[in-house]
Amino acid sequence: MSILAVGSVAFDSITTPAGSVKDMLGGSATYFSLAASYFTKVRVVAVVGEDFTSEHENVLKKRGVDTRGIEHAKGKTFRWGGKYLENLNEAKTDFTELNVFEKFQPRIPVEYKDSTILFLGNIHPALQAAVRREMQNVQLTGGDTMNFWIQGTRQELGETLKLVDVLLINDGEAKMLAGQTNLPRAAHHVLAMGPKALVIKHGEYGATIFFREGAFGIGRHPFRAPALPIEEVKDPTGAGDSFAGGFMGYIASQEELNREVLKRGLFYGGVMGSFAVERFGTERLQSLSREEIDARFEVFRELTHLE
Amino acid sequence: MSILAVGSVAFDSITTPAGSVKDMLGGSATYFSLAASYFTKVRVVAVVGEDFTSEHENVLKKRGVDTRGIEHAKGKTFRWGGKYLENLNEAKTDFTELNVFEKFQPRIPVEYKDSTILFLGNIHPALQAAVRREMQNVQLTGGDTMNFWIQGTRQELGETLKLVDVLLINDGEAKMLAGQTNLPRAAHHVLAMGPKALVIKHGEYGATIFFREGAFGIGRHPFRAPALPIEEVKDPTGAGDSFAGGFMGYIASQEELNREVLKRGLFYGGVMGSFAVERFGTERLQSLSREEIDARFEVFRELTHLE
Repeated sequence: MSILAVGSVAFDSITTPAGSVKDMLGGSATYFSLAASYFTKVRVVAVVGEDFTSEHENVLKKRGVDTRGIEHAKGKTFRWGGKYLENLNEAKTDFTELNVFEKFQPRIPVEYKDSTILFLGNIHPALQAAVRREMQNVQLTGGDTMNFWIQGTRQELGETLKLVDVLLINDGEAKMLAGQTNLPRAAHHVLAMGPKALVIKHGEYGATIFFREGAFGIGRHPFRAPALPIEEVKDPTGAGDSFAGGFMGYIASQEELNREVLKRGLFYGGVMGSFAVERFGTERLQSLSREEIDARFEVFRELTHLE
Repeated sequence: MSILAVGSVAFDSITTPAGSVKDMLGGSATYFSLAASYFTKVRVVAVVGEDFTSEHENVLKKRGVDTRGIEHAKGKTFRWGGKYLENLNEAKTDFTELNVFEKFQPRIPVEYKDSTILFLGNIHPALQAAVRREMQNVQLTGGDTMNFWIQGTRQELGETLKLVDVLLINDGEAKMLAGQTNLPRAAHHVLAMGPKALVIKHGEYGATIFFREGAFGIGRHPFRAPALPIEEVKDPTGAGDSFAGGFMGYIASQEELNREVLKRGLFYGGVMGSFAVERFGTERLQSLSREEIDARFEVFRELTHLE
């Protein structure tokens, strides 16, 4: 099944202990699409400016991503600059230039309307809801959000959460959204807001999926996937979006949605996140093979597997 | 095989979001011994004051712990007071009264000398080393330490690390000890200091064991065990010592030391830590059954197990 991904395309300027890059292709839709492209067909809806060249677009096209939904607007592409210091889990933002992204109104090509799986990247929750409502054939919706929307657009986010089947956020976002410092309690609060499942990403410690009672007919026991202890983290940017791409992409590639598929999806999410951070920007995600991905999946499995 | 545990016995005054307790029996040797007692015979070496009654000692005796190595000294037992605020992972110390613990010189009863497994709780590294050197029949030594010793007694700690087979510390301690912010790199630095294996405890995210190349003849791939997402964390005090007790206790109960035993030990460590935090002090660890422990082991296994 093909996935429709809606999100940002950006040029990132990043400094980490491993070096610096300027105006490197990034954005949530970019990372998500590249990661998911190893599992299924991906269609993308985003907006870019006049500085987004065919060379940039080819990064996605080479991976078979359908880019007809990328709107080319007058002006400059969204730009973000940030630093990761000693603590690679947290970025310090240097600047955010929304540019064409400020007025982004997702326009879905008619050819995309038969998509059955939807991923709502980290954009204004009202836009996420509008996209979801427009997509009548969707059977599973994944979504992301962040502190900015949790604090600033609480009510709209509440409406959007009723339309999302699987929400993917990190520990801090889950606790903020729920107003709870205990993680499993926060998870149950968030699930009561609408999603059937909640994936909480723990960065270098992996991720946990919590289920609403009766969701997907699979009981409510949580499941946890590890992350690989990686010595060479070059650039953490996009790890969460790559995680989402691996998770949703794997699910889209399966005929049935059951507990085992969601579990394996969580492992594939970790795998794609672990590849993403090995190089700056999307470099590593551009040139993987399914064999490399499955080999790392086995490493992840071995990491926690008891005989 | 029986374990000899050397460490502290204390009376803790603890405040958490779930409530407050005063002068509750605690200390690293206490938590460790109770947790390990479900797997093997435990002998303990520690010092207590005149306020340590037979009622306190019976907590250990009821679990079959050999308390002949507990020295009764003039004065008061070690006391610690602390608060856990919203972030249950970190305690704010209110007071530390070393009392009889200040002059603690571990004296090992002659009946303990045949112990083959040794756990060196979090005490001065020079004392840890002296105990290890005195125990000639020991085949496996586990050890703990903390920031205080890493910063204050670096050289002595370096000597002790050469005598420890498995070091159990948390993320922050590992990074401080190695002078490295990347966890797997920190692990390799620590392993170069002496231990054959390093268990890094991630609190609510579980634990990872790293192996020195060739150690135990099992290769150097790390292994990670999850922690259970727990809704009711009443009191995190002693979680790390209970983890160590479950880990070392399980290992001591096995005939052979191989990769699978170390992996299962890591799971049992998480299991005992998860029980410890459910009640204040050692309450939960006093009245478990092996059936309850094994049932939770299965829950932990299911938490990350792929078909």
